[in-house]
Amino acid sequence: MAAEPKKIIIDTDPGVDDAMAIFLALRSPEVEVIGLTTIYGNVYTTLATRNALHLLEVAGRTDIPVAEGSHVTITKGTKLRIADFVHGADGLGNQNFDPPKGKPVEQSAAAFLVEQAKLHPGKVTVVALGPLTNIALAIELDPEFCKNIRQIVLLGGAFSVNGNVNPAAEANIFGDPDAADIVFTCGADILAVGINVTHQVALTDAERDKLIQSNGKFAQYLSKILEVYLSYHQEAYSMRGVYLHDPTALLAAVNPSLFTYTEGAVRVQTNGITRGLTLLYNKQKRFGEVTEWTDKPTVKVAMTVDAPTVVKLLMERLMES
Amino acid sequence: MAAEPKKIIIDTDPGVDDAMAIFLALRSPEVEVIGLTTIYGNVYTTLATRNALHLLEVAGRTDIPVAEGSHVTITKGTKLRIADFVHGADGLGNQNFDPPKGKPVEQSAAAFLVEQAKLHPGKVTVVALGPLTNIALAIELDPEFCKNIRQIVLLGGAFSVNGNVNPAAEANIFGDPDAADIVFTCGADILAVGINVTHQVALTDAERDKLIQSNGKFAQYLSKILEVYLSYHQEAYSMRGVYLHDPTALLAAVNPSLFTYTEGAVRVQTNGITRGLTLLYNKQKRFGEVTEWTDKPTVKVAMTVDAPTVVKLLMERLMES
Repeated sequence: MAAEPKKIIIDTDPGVDDAMAIFLALRSPEVEVIGLTTIYGNVYTTLATRNALHLLEVAGRTDIPVAEGSHVTITKGTKLRIADFVHGADGLGNQNFDPPKGKPVEQSAAAFLVEQAKLHPGKVTVVALGPLTNIALAIELDPEFCKNIRQIVLLGGAFSVNGNVNPAAEANIFGDPDAADIVFTCGADILAVGINVTHQVALTDAERDKLIQSNGKFAQYLSKILEVYLSYHQEAYSMRGVYLHDPTALLAAVNPSLFTYTEGAVRVQTNGITRGLTLLYNKQKRFGEVTEWTDKPTVKVAMTVDAPTVVKLLMERLMES
Repeated sequence: MAAEPKKIIIDTDPGVDDAMAIFLALRSPEVEVIGLTTIYGNVYTTLATRNALHLLEVAGRTDIPVAEGSHVTITKGTKLRIADFVHGADGLGNQNFDPPKGKPVEQSAAAFLVEQAKLHPGKVTVVALGPLTNIALAIELDPEFCKNIRQIVLLGGAFSVNGNVNPAAEANIFGDPDAADIVFTCGADILAVGINVTHQVALTDAERDKLIQSNGKFAQYLSKILEVYLSYHQEAYSMRGVYLHDPTALLAAVNPSLFTYTEGAVRVQTNGITRGLTLLYNKQKRFGEVTEWTDKPTVKVAMTVDAPTVVKLLMERLMES
């Protein structure tokens, strides 16, 4: 008998690569998507909710609940940085899709996360693809959340490499550094996939062409919304292709053996010129003095990825008809 | 005819490995030491001055002037972090040496640096082995200093690796982060050698034994003062040996071809949990927004080192009688 699929909740700010990750999850028998929670990041939260509902309708999976997340950072008052120049003004490649018919559930994202974790203790994995506000709010809402949750797989951080918002910070962590620091130090089983790893995984122009030629519903849909995202990569990185941030992080929940990991305590700088920087203490040196990393729980941070297999899995599953 | 030796001023906080670097410089025909300037770090500045004078007397080189540097950080009021637990209470392995006979020159370190750079424009290299306060003060004292100086070779930073004061910061940069940020962004020709490189260069117990057995005056002297430094490394890093931070940085001035370098803008975080962190922007990504690294001058940062040759050169030169 096959293993029971892993229950996952995707916390998402769709977003072109969020759409890829959501579709990939729905085509991955290893996981069962039990909900989407929404957050600002690639778009504002209201639009993220609309897009999440829209994507589930495209997929014919309106049975999956969507819970709307926070509209502001955990400390409030912080100006949001919305990456519409990366994903289009609508977050989905400026395709002007019709509004979805569905509605989000009444619960907030944080309340939904807390409830599901309590309902299935040790069984629910959160795949966090945006700023970590909702997860931090869930931790604040329920001190047991970090014990009830099976794992938090998060796309975030730039470990020992330059960021993508500025030289210090990766976009998801920069979006709410205070929330990120709460999550990294909460004691849950955490697996962070940073841009040091996702910048190793690109979908090329040639692969995009294969998506266009495929009969797969998801492949067809994605090949359209990819244009704006491709233009951004050309401009920012001089590459003909796109990074597969969100699908790569999703696959870390689906098949952890595609990655290697290091372990250590991670803290987030919350102010100054390196605001949003993630710093892993690998515990190699014993410091004489107490540091801000001392006694903080250990998390897993992805270091390498089997990129060809990630791309192959993504292509195969998205091109299924 | 041999090339004229490179004029160097060593800014130093002796310090066991400072002593090694100073003796190595005096035995290196490629460089001419035209002065020592002193700074707090391994010891307080007063003791650094005393030790600098003492080391020149041991070497029989009292012709070299010593200029005393700042006793406080550039922003003042910051509590100093003195690494006497690494180098001994006297900075030289608790050997209780007699006080030196000589005295420092009347000039401050910063004034001495400015004067020498002006006297020999484009000819003087500063090898900075401690916190960068004196160099930053020289920059403030004379806007032409960064143009007059040939190069600043500095031991400092932890580029993409954990620090040695805490997970974020290397000791010399942590000693005065504001000064370090002034130096990195001043526009001089700067070559930074961080602990990402110097942690690749160790002197083993076996090599220390060779120093003991050597007839060389410097070898004899150093083998005595190494004990405390060895104990610290055993405790902090579980290693039987010592890192050659200062001699390695000195050799970057003597023979730059022992290293490979990357280039980029370096900024220093001056507050929060990652205070003292050095962050290199490698200019690979073009950011849409202006960042704190935008338009900042490019510096060279050492990435790899020919460690066996560094150790060989050091041993050979220190064991000469």
